Amino acid sequence: MTESKTAVHFGRPQSGWRLRAFTIIFESDTRAGRNFDLLLIAAIVASVLVVILDSVDALTASHKTLFDVLEWGFTLIFTIEYVLRLVCIRHPWRYATSFYGIVDLLAVVPTYFAFFLPQAQVLINLRLLRSLRIFRILKLIEYVSEFRFLGSALKASRRKITVFISFVLITVAILGSLMYVIEGPRNGFTSIPVSIYWAITTITTVGFGDITPKTDLGRFIASCIMLMGWGILAVPTGIVTSEMTAQRMTRSFATRTCPGCLAQDHDTDALFCKHCGKALPADPRA
Amino acid sequence: MTESKTAVHFGRPQSGWRLRAFTIIFESDTRAGRNFDLLLIAAIVASVLVVILDSVDALTASHKTLFDVLEWGFTLIFTIEYVLRLVCIRHPWRYATSFYGIVDLLAVVPTYFAFFLPQAQVLINLRLLRSLRIFRILKLIEYVSEFRFLGSALKASRRKITVFISFVLITVAILGSLMYVIEGPRNGFTSIPVSIYWAITTITTVGFGDITPKTDLGRFIASCIMLMGWGILAVPTGIVTSEMTAQRMTRSFATRTCPGCLAQDHDTDALFCKHCGKALPADPRA
Amino acid sequence: MTESKTAVHFGRPQSGWRLRAFTIIFESDTRAGRNFDLLLIAAIVASVLVVILDSVDALTASHKTLFDVLEWGFTLIFTIEYVLRLVCIRHPWRYATSFYGIVDLLAVVPTYFAFFLPQAQVLINLRLLRSLRIFRILKLIEYVSEFRFLGSALKASRRKITVFISFVLITVAILGSLMYVIEGPRNGFTSIPVSIYWAITTITTVGFGDITPKTDLGRFIASCIMLMGWGILAVPTGIVTSEMTAQRMTRSFATRTCPGCLAQDHDTDALFCKHCGKALPADPRA
Amino acid sequence: MTESKTAVHFGRPQSGWRLRAFTIIFESDTRAGRNFDLLLIAAIVASVLVVILDSVDALTASHKTLFDVLEWGFTLIFTIEYVLRLVCIRHPWRYATSFYGIVDLLAVVPTYFAFFLPQAQVLINLRLLRSLRIFRILKLIEYVSEFRFLGSALKASRRKITVFISFVLITVAILGSLMYVIEGPRNGFTSIPVSIYWAITTITTVGFGDITPKTDLGRFIASCIMLMGWGILAVPTGIVTSEMTAQRMTRSFATRTCPGCLAQDHDTDALFCKHCGKALPADPRA
Repeated sequence: MTESKTAVHFGRPQSGWRLRAFTIIFESDTRAGRNFDLLLIAAIVASVLVVILDSVDALTASHKTLFDVLEWGFTLIFTIEYVLRLVCIRHPWRYATSFYGIVDLLAVVPTYFAFFLPQAQVLINLRLLRSLRIFRILKLIEYVSEFRFLGSALKASRRKITVFISFVLITVAILGSLMYVIEGPRNGFTSIPVSIYWAITTITTVGFGDITPKTDLGRFIASCIMLMGWGILAVPTGIVTSEMTAQRMTRSFATRTCPGCLAQDHDTDALFCKHCGKALPADPRA
Repeated sequence: MTESKTAVHFGRPQSGWRLRAFTIIFESDTRAGRNFDLLLIAAIVASVLVVILDSVDALTASHKTLFDVLEWGFTLIFTIEYVLRLVCIRHPWRYATSFYGIVDLLAVVPTYFAFFLPQAQVLINLRLLRSLRIFRILKLIEYVSEFRFLGSALKASRRKITVFISFVLITVAILGSLMYVIEGPRNGFTSIPVSIYWAITTITTVGFGDITPKTDLGRFIASCIMLMGWGILAVPTGIVTSEMTAQRMTRSFATRTCPGCLAQDHDTDALFCKHCGKALPADPRA
Repeated sequence: MTESKTAVHFGRPQSGWRLRAFTIIFESDTRAGRNFDLLLIAAIVASVLVVILDSVDALTASHKTLFDVLEWGFTLIFTIEYVLRLVCIRHPWRYATSFYGIVDLLAVVPTYFAFFLPQAQVLINLRLLRSLRIFRILKLIEYVSEFRFLGSALKASRRKITVFISFVLITVAILGSLMYVIEGPRNGFTSIPVSIYWAITTITTVGFGDITPKTDLGRFIASCIMLMGWGILAVPTGIVTSEMTAQRMTRSFATRTCPGCLAQDHDTDALFCKHCGKALPADPRA
Repeated sequence: MTESKTAVHFGRPQSGWRLRAFTIIFESDTRAGRNFDLLLIAAIVASVLVVILDSVDALTASHKTLFDVLEWGFTLIFTIEYVLRLVCIRHPWRYATSFYGIVDLLAVVPTYFAFFLPQAQVLINLRLLRSLRIFRILKLIEYVSEFRFLGSALKASRRKITVFISFVLITVAILGSLMYVIEGPRNGFTSIPVSIYWAITTITTVGFGDITPKTDLGRFIASCIMLMGWGILAVPTGIVTSEMTAQRMTRSFATRTCPGCLAQDHDTDALFCKHCGKALPADPRA
């Protein structure tokens, strides 16, 4: 069995309970490992829900104790998990300084801090970083072929999207500055960054309406921005769609040639030429 | 004649007027049955329109009596229809406890309640459930091939859309929490659920503007969310479009069956089976 | 020369200055006719611009006389044109009662009315109907092949778009009613029609923000509507795009079969089989 | 070496340091020229950032001196660059009167003006024209094939987009006038131009909410505009997407030339010329 990247980097233990713990916690190709992942994700989602509901004043007033108990429960579970992760690998320091290591630590530290240092209550919001752990879900989602399809379509369009975003940013900077000069601070365009924020609001068709042009010229230019944004909106859609259509087509065409009549365009599952009935060579990609 | 699923489930009567009533009310493959369906849909649409107009204060003031008469008319029609449905099947209880059975009951009960128990006036709003009956229209719409085309395109993209929606929900939860920490209750982001509601408002480019960022950092992050939402917007469009394009192309492929190995999915231009090499029958459409 | 539909319907004069006038005014396949159309469109656009600018208080204050002179100028031009149209055809009544005939009359009548009956000043707004004449431009635009392409793509998707719009209307009616029950008049959802207006505002991602949900449940449902609207937005785009892609492809593929090797998929401009080099039969569509 | 268009138009010097300066400043096909372009773009972006930050009151209060020093630094750099550009070409006047020549001058003049004529402080905003220089970046971006792909897709759809925009403008003018008549000045639709601005806001789904319909009829028409805008939104997306899909497919066709009749555009699987039937050379990419 070849070792995974994680196993090599953090050091898979040789044997004993530490190897079993490593297999369960860090790997997901065994039944136990996958169950652990699912349980962990459930715990993360639940703990994030508690943090979210804890921020609603009406609920905190009536369920203070319940939230506190749940909060401490999740903190203990995540603390145990964090210690286990450190204990069952050979290079604990590498894990502690990795991205997920720091996120895992930040998921539990704020609760202890707020308990021992009551004046550090504001830090409690750092618990929200716990939600970053949700991205571990993506590790699982990657098994879903649909996600790979989406991911590869986006990845293939990466450069086009970058070029497109830079073009949009330049346009937005120029238009924002223009509106700052035309409308000025008295109509809510208090500075160029604020005007650029307004231009982004408008070109993406979000249109909050907290800042709006009041002068005739400003409204005329705003109209142009909107119509332009409409056309520009078509570009990312076109990029992603044509990428997806292309990927779908690539998957379904083979390029074998019939030895009898030299016809091409045979399906991937074809064994005989559809034109002359001769046996086809094996598909090199199959 | 094979019995339909409805006929088997609710029990088609053997003969007599009950069989005739059953054919008209529950089935739509006869002329009378289809006419009944169209009349019923007209009655539902009209009764929903009355409920809708009844909610406008200006109209209620001047046309109170007209609305009351119409309301009682529709209630009587729907009551008779409900009783007929129960009477003409062999398992009335199965129908009464089915989804449409409950909806049909809820369509008439509130009017009687409000009449006999004046203090239960608030329940009158339950009449709105009557609008759920409109979905019976879909039963008819299904005959329209255009709808089947749309439906199957959406169904085929079901898993991709699920993956996409979960990704959007995670993103929105993280961004909402972030904005709650940055902007806080003093700028309208009173709790994390409210902030998530704001993030959804922004990422879908709806942008109500009832809650808007006021700090510079908040506006910067809002700008990022908007530009991101723009790109993300391209994904569902890409999914549905490439699915539709693919289906349109699939439809242009023939569905001949090989006389030798019974394989299908041969290209329109295939003369020999691609699996066993036997000659194919001529394409009936060519 | 075959007579056009217009010529047959309104009656083309036999000869003389009336025939010359008819050719210039009603037909656009001569040089003079086309020039007349272009001049007329210029006059319509200019007169509409005058009406538009006349509505701006700041401009009316300072340029009252100029606007009045221009207004009378255009009214006289359009009156002469209207009389000429009536005079140079054999069935003037058919024209006077046709759609464009009524529009042409309404374009000049309000100015005379407002002059002779000062108390009928409000009717002056009817001048705006003049803008309907702009649709004559479309007669010209039809010559542009790009427009035909757009038009036929939209026409081909007509039934799908109808089905889609009915589905959206049902959804919006149900969601609007639901929000009316949840939020009620105290939060701005004063009646079901207003709530449906709000639901359309939200599902199309316009999001004015004049009416917004205030309760937690209302905001939750609003979030669902927004995410749904996002997905639904993809459907019309998918319909139109796949229609356009299909039309583009149909235009470029022929379906001739090579008499030598029976291969298909030859380009429209192919004279010899690309597989065996034999001469191809003539393209039936060419 | 063939001379570039720039070289011909402005006159490339024969030799000496002026030729070296010309090669570095005006051309970008040498290493030094490309480095100069990159440095210049960095300076433009930095100077624009300074102007942007200078507009934020909070920052100006604390960093006035820093901004002034940077401002003068960039002004000096751009002045030297401007003089060098004039000196190293043979027709300096042609450059000074070209578009970029004027922009380059306007990028430095306002700072000197504001220094020598303190009362001309308002002109300082002209410095923002400096941001137009950013478009020089596009000269570089053109080397990126992704941009060429986007650009040619947009260019190919140019006529379709023009037709589409004119159609949208006519629609918006008619709907705006209609809403002006229905809602009138008391509901914020103060003039027809303002109503057209509102119609554009709505049809592009931006929906600021600064002006909203208040009457029932106005809201009904607004709902129609929104649903229509939704459908119309699909058109530019469809145009761009089908153009991109088509271009992607065209690229996958080979460009072999027939040795017999010099025809091109043969399919990848073609063995014989489709025009004259001669055998084709092997596809170099196969």
